Amino acid sequence: MGKRLVIIGGVAAGMSAAAKAKRVNPDLEIKVFTEGQYISYAACGLPYFIGDKIKEVDKLFARDRDFFVKQGIEVHTGYRAEEIIPQKKEISVFSTADKKMMKVNYDRLIIATGARAFVPPMEGIFLEGVFTLRNVEDGLRIKKYILGKKPGRAVIVGGGYIGLEMAENLAELGIKVKILERSKHILPNMDIDMAELVKGYLLDKGIDVVTEVGVQKIDGDIKVEKVITEKGDIETDMVILSVGIVPNTELAARAGIELGYKNAIRVNSKQETNIPDIYAAGDCATVYHLLTGREVYVPSGPTANKQGRIAGENAAGGNEAFYGVVGTAITKVFDLEIARTGLSCRECEEIGWPYETSFIKAKNAAEFYPGNREINIKLIAHKGTGKLLGGQIVGFNGAGKKIDVIATAITLGATVQQLKNMDLAYVPPLSPVWDGLLIALNQFA
Amino acid sequence: MGKRLVIIGGVAAGMSAAAKAKRVNPDLEIKVFTEGQYISYAACGLPYFIGDKIKEVDKLFARDRDFFVKQGIEVHTGYRAEEIIPQKKEISVFSTADKKMMKVNYDRLIIATGARAFVPPMEGIFLEGVFTLRNVEDGLRIKKYILGKKPGRAVIVGGGYIGLEMAENLAELGIKVKILERSKHILPNMDIDMAELVKGYLLDKGIDVVTEVGVQKIDGDIKVEKVITEKGDIETDMVILSVGIVPNTELAARAGIELGYKNAIRVNSKQETNIPDIYAAGDCATVYHLLTGREVYVPSGPTANKQGRIAGENAAGGNEAFYGVVGTAITKVFDLEIARTGLSCRECEEIGWPYETSFIKAKNAAEFYPGNREINIKLIAHKGTGKLLGGQIVGFNGAGKKIDVIATAITLGATVQQLKNMDLAYVPPLSPVWDGLLIALNQFA
Repeated sequence: MGKRLVIIGGVAAGMSAAAKAKRVNPDLEIKVFTEGQYISYAACGLPYFIGDKIKEVDKLFARDRDFFVKQGIEVHTGYRAEEIIPQKKEISVFSTADKKMMKVNYDRLIIATGARAFVPPMEGIFLEGVFTLRNVEDGLRIKKYILGKKPGRAVIVGGGYIGLEMAENLAELGIKVKILERSKHILPNMDIDMAELVKGYLLDKGIDVVTEVGVQKIDGDIKVEKVITEKGDIETDMVILSVGIVPNTELAARAGIELGYKNAIRVNSKQETNIPDIYAAGDCATVYHLLTGREVYVPSGPTANKQGRIAGENAAGGNEAFYGVVGTAITKVFDLEIARTGLSCRECEEIGWPYETSFIKAKNAAEFYPGNREINIKLIAHKGTGKLLGGQIVGFNGAGKKIDVIATAITLGATVQQLKNMDLAYVPPLSPVWDGLLIALNQFA
Repeated sequence: MGKRLVIIGGVAAGMSAAAKAKRVNPDLEIKVFTEGQYISYAACGLPYFIGDKIKEVDKLFARDRDFFVKQGIEVHTGYRAEEIIPQKKEISVFSTADKKMMKVNYDRLIIATGARAFVPPMEGIFLEGVFTLRNVEDGLRIKKYILGKKPGRAVIVGGGYIGLEMAENLAELGIKVKILERSKHILPNMDIDMAELVKGYLLDKGIDVVTEVGVQKIDGDIKVEKVITEKGDIETDMVILSVGIVPNTELAARAGIELGYKNAIRVNSKQETNIPDIYAAGDCATVYHLLTGREVYVPSGPTANKQGRIAGENAAGGNEAFYGVVGTAITKVFDLEIARTGLSCRECEEIGWPYETSFIKAKNAAEFYPGNREINIKLIAHKGTGKLLGGQIVGFNGAGKKIDVIATAITLGATVQQLKNMDLAYVPPLSPVWDGLLIALNQFA
C-alpha cells in the first residue's frame, strides 16, 4: 500500500480517519485539507452554544490542530478541494487565503466532505436574520445576531431534531418560538402518535407548533420581517431553516465516483468507493441499513466517526468493515427525551413488511418512588416472525437512552419472544419491577 | 386440567401467578394462602420507606386484596402452610388468628414461599435495635425504632445491595453509618476494582466502610450497645444484618419436592417441580443462568414476577417457558448508580472460562456539555470467541440502566465484534458521540 494518505474534510469523519490511519500505520504521510477554519468539532453541540449553555465555541472542538500535528498529521485549513483526478491520483486544492491552486498527489484518498444544510429555493433566504445551522460559522453568526439584535420572536422552519433543539435553546434565551412543519406531524422519522405527544409537550412549554404548513417566501427589507405561508403571514425577527441536509458530493461525482441513495457517495462495508484507492466516510456517504439490507442515507455524528475510523484503518492497510446502522436517533427538548430506532410504521409500509405494534405508558422508576416520571414506548415487530423491527420512545429522565436496548436487540436480529422476559435491571429509583420495555414487549400477543 | 389452583405465598411470585392464572383461565378457582398480613408488596421499596422518602407503607402495595377479590381470586392472609401431601393433592394451613388447622385440596399447587433473611448464628441477635430487613413487618419495626429511639449510629453488617441502600437511607436521616463486610470488598457480586470505586464514593459521603471484618457477637443489656469484631468493638445504637437470604423451602422438602442449588426448589423452564401438578416460583426457586446453562439461585423481584406469571400460566393450562437470567442487578446509593450483569471475573474463573476485560472511564453526556458526569464501565469477554460474558457499571445519571444494553447483548449471545460499532443514540445532553459502552467494546483487541 501507498505512502501518502490525503483526506478531504476535517470534521468528524475526516479527522477520525486521520487519527486511526496514523495509529494503524505510523509511517504513513497524512495530509488533511479542509475548507473551513475549524476542525474536529461537534456540530451537534451548536444549538447549546447558541443557547449559551456552552459559553465558548472552543468547547466544541474535540481535538485541536496541535493534537493532530503532534501525531504527525498535516492539517491544512482554508483549502477547498476543487478536483479529483483518479487517473493521476491527484487532487487540486484552492487556498482561500492565498487564492492559489495547488496539486497534491495521493496514494490513497478519503473523501469526508460532509453535508450542507438544504436551503429551499425561495425568496428572502438571504435577508439578514435568516439562518441555517450546520457548521461553526453558522453558530457564531446566529449567536452574534441574537446578542446584537435581541430578537423577540423566531420562526423555525422544519420540525426535525435540530429544529426542536433550536426551539429549546432560543426559548430559553427568552425568544418566542414558532415551529413550522410542512408534513402532517413534526419529527418525520417517527410515527404520528409519538410525534403528537411531543407536540403537546412543546405547546405546554409555550412553543408554537404549526403542521401542514408550507413556507412560500420570507419577506423583509434588509432584515427579515415576515414569513409568508399558505396559512398567512407570520411576523418574526429571525428564521432558522432546518429542513434537512444534502451531501457534498459534487466534487466526487465530477471525478466519476458513483453516487447512491440521495446522491450520497456509494460505499461498501470497507468504505471503498467504486474507484480504487478512494474511500468515503461520514455525512457525504451512504450507509447500509442492517434490517433492510438497503443502502440508505442517515447522516449522524456517531456514524461519521465510525465510518471515518474504518476508512482510516482500511486506507492505512487494515481490513475492517462497517456493517451498517439501524437508524437510531435521539434528541432532548427541555426535559423531554425523544428517541427512535429501526423502522417506523411508515417505513415498514414502504418496504411492504407486515407489522404489528405495541404501545405503553409507563414510569421511569417504581410507581411508589417519589418523582417518577412518564415514559411512552412504542414497539414495532414483524407480523409472522415476531422479529423486532423498530422502537420509539418519548419520556423523561433516562427514557431516551433506553432506545439503545432496542437498537441492540435489532442489531442482533432478536424476536419479541426472545426478549420479553429479559433480565433487565430493577431498583426502585431507576425502574419499575417490570421495565417499560418489558411491558411493551409483553403487549404483543 | 384441574379446577382449583392453590398458591402458597402472596407476594411477588404468588400474586403474579394468581393474576395470570385467572387471565388464562377465568373459570379456575384460585386460593392464595399467605402467612403475613401484607400481600403483593414491593420489598425492594422498604429501604426508602425507612428513609422516609416514601411516607406511607401503603405505597409499597402494588395491588390490594380488593383488586384480586374483584377478579375472583381468594386471598387468605395469616395462614401458614404446614404440610403438603402430594399423594392426596392436599395442603394443611394453620390460621394464625384462629389458631386452627385446615385442610385444602388442590388440583394444581404453586409454591411461592419466598426467602427469609439469613441470620448468622451468634450472640446478641435478639437484642432490641438489631434488625434484618426482608418484609413489611421488618420495615415497620425499623421505622418505629428510629422514630422512637432516634439512634445516632448504625452498623450495617453486609455490604451488598440492601446494605448500601440502607446506608443511604439511614445516613439521610442523620444517622452515622458504618458498613462491615466480611469479604475483601463490598458488593461481592462485582469485581474488586469496581467495588473499590463504590467504597471510595461511600467514604466521601461520610459512610464508614470496613472490609475483611467478621462480626463475633452483638453486645448489650436489653438494647444493642456494641458490635464485637475481630478488629475491635464498635459502639452503636442499631444494627442491620444484611448478609444474604435463604429460600423458604423446608415445607417443600418435607413433601419430597426436590431441592437444587442453595436448597432452593428445583424447577424446570415451565416452573414445574419434580412432583406432578406442583410448581414453584420466585425467591424460593432456582433459575437457569442463560450464559452458563447452570442452575443458580439469584432471587430478585423481576425474576419472581416473571416466574410467578409463567407458573400461573402453566398451572392454568398454558404452555410458557422461562429461559432464565443473566444475573443482572442494580442499585443506587445517593447519586451513584451501580450495576452488573453476566459473569464477574471471579465467576469466569470458577467456571474455568478464559476471559479478557476492558475498563474505561467515560462521561454520560458530551464532554462539552455542562454538568456531564462520570461513568465507569468494565466489560468481560470470552478469550477466543469474543463472546460478551459480563459487564459492570459504576457512575451517575443514567449510568446504571446502561447495563440493560449489556444484558440484552448477553441474552442474545453477542460477540464484541458484533457490538463494537453498534448504532447507539447520541445527543450531547445524554451521551458522548462515542457512547461509553462502545468505547469499552473498542478497548478489546
